Amino acid sequence: MRFMRVGAPGAERPVVTDDTAGAGHDERSFDLRPLTADVDGAFLADGLARTRAAIDAGELPETDISGERVGSPVARPSAIVCIGMNYAAHAAESGAQPPAQPVVFLKTPNTMAGPDDVAYIPRGSSRTDWEVELGVVIGRRASYLSGPEESRDHIAGYLTANDLSERAFQLDVSGGQWSKGKCAPGFSPLGPWLVPADEVDTSNLRLRSWVNGEPRQDSTTADMIFDVDFIVHHLSQYMALEPGDVIMTGTPQGVALAGKYPYLSAGDVVEIEVEGLGRQRQVFEQA
Amino acid sequence: MRFMRVGAPGAERPVVTDDTAGAGHDERSFDLRPLTADVDGAFLADGLARTRAAIDAGELPETDISGERVGSPVARPSAIVCIGMNYAAHAAESGAQPPAQPVVFLKTPNTMAGPDDVAYIPRGSSRTDWEVELGVVIGRRASYLSGPEESRDHIAGYLTANDLSERAFQLDVSGGQWSKGKCAPGFSPLGPWLVPADEVDTSNLRLRSWVNGEPRQDSTTADMIFDVDFIVHHLSQYMALEPGDVIMTGTPQGVALAGKYPYLSAGDVVEIEVEGLGRQRQVFEQA
Repeated sequence: MRFMRVGAPGAERPVVTDDTAGAGHDERSFDLRPLTADVDGAFLADGLARTRAAIDAGELPETDISGERVGSPVARPSAIVCIGMNYAAHAAESGAQPPAQPVVFLKTPNTMAGPDDVAYIPRGSSRTDWEVELGVVIGRRASYLSGPEESRDHIAGYLTANDLSERAFQLDVSGGQWSKGKCAPGFSPLGPWLVPADEVDTSNLRLRSWVNGEPRQDSTTADMIFDVDFIVHHLSQYMALEPGDVIMTGTPQGVALAGKYPYLSAGDVVEIEVEGLGRQRQVFEQA
Repeated sequence: MRFMRVGAPGAERPVVTDDTAGAGHDERSFDLRPLTADVDGAFLADGLARTRAAIDAGELPETDISGERVGSPVARPSAIVCIGMNYAAHAAESGAQPPAQPVVFLKTPNTMAGPDDVAYIPRGSSRTDWEVELGVVIGRRASYLSGPEESRDHIAGYLTANDLSERAFQLDVSGGQWSKGKCAPGFSPLGPWLVPADEVDTSNLRLRSWVNGEPRQDSTTADMIFDVDFIVHHLSQYMALEPGDVIMTGTPQGVALAGKYPYLSAGDVVEIEVEGLGRQRQVFEQA
């Protein structure tokens, strides 16, 4: 199943696409509103299982979503929690050692954007950068989990996430705290889909990015220093994760920060994709 | 006027206390629900002025709040944005130079707590610390303000804020990103009151803290490196501030981090006060 929110910004309707009908069958999309007004924290606690049952029972009306704008597949989370330097080669290209423990920073939730929305070069920016990441969506509150093996019970699903970053804001005028370069409007494109956790094996997903059609990042979640279960357990020792919260699990090598590629300018087109979780495409404009 | 939210956690009702009746008159509290269901971002845009008019017109019923729990005076914000090292003497006691530009980090909004709620020493903590701060509450969205002189139009009011911190989490196991030590459950006591911006002169407010009745911090906002108007304008260049968001403007010298006082333990009582904005009192328990 693929959970989506389609429609105008702030007025999205929740839908689910059944991509499991098998060979020879078209994918079918269903209106989720008989079950929930939105794909939010309250729904994610048990809504994914109820959706499967409702599809099987024929309780959801089919809907045509072709041509509609796609929004973030989750309504605005209470927090977007990010793991920094979680791929050894990216740490190296950034001039840093691989971290001994997860490095944690936050983005403001209002940075959330749809996967194909216009993205913006912030005013005063000279170093706007892309970061393809595996995103984790929390389904049940996670506080003081007793071990990584408990993490899966608290994860609703996964999505493609772009952790857009302005490196001068993040590193040069920040006093060392990264959030200043992570929170510009529209800096967290999410989606297009939320795929339920039990349909995804996160151990070896290919992550790729392109700028104007040219390849940039091409790696796999197998290269993550800290895996998903470790991260959720670890975070739960320092903060309470709420249903609907999004964790961005870090980006692999191949970003502009490393010096091999130019930073983004107005008119550039960024595409990112996480295997099985869908592709984003952002055309950049000057804010 | 003092805006408050009183009642059980998650079920607070909004009230306003009129403290301007003059000598010889008792303060009177009024139920705000004829005007709004909550003191939230939507209300803050124009609700403070409407409240004054409603009190004067006798449209709000008096209410008795004695003995009731006091919650955060604003409903959960979309972001809690913090300014680090904004008092030169605190930067020095922390072993840092005064910053050339504001240092910005974030707390998750679910850290919000009432001013007198039980506070918790996080599990695994050895260095839990207090930080009295002037809190700014945003009233109108602020993005790319053209100068500090525009900031006041975007500020709803002010409140007392405790930026509780776990220094080992913040500094020793964080890879340098502070949020890991700033987001434990209950780590952002706010209130007791929100005082409208036009009733507060933030240029020289005394800030004090006590542990078990012994004085700790005692300073004034006159010592802030970056003042309120500068901060709001500056932040708006890097992120969009939303109505209801809270900015913690930094703490003065006198925290445990400096080495002169012990860190907090279960049973300790922390009190903090910002002149004119009310006093908080937290009894600490082990999480």
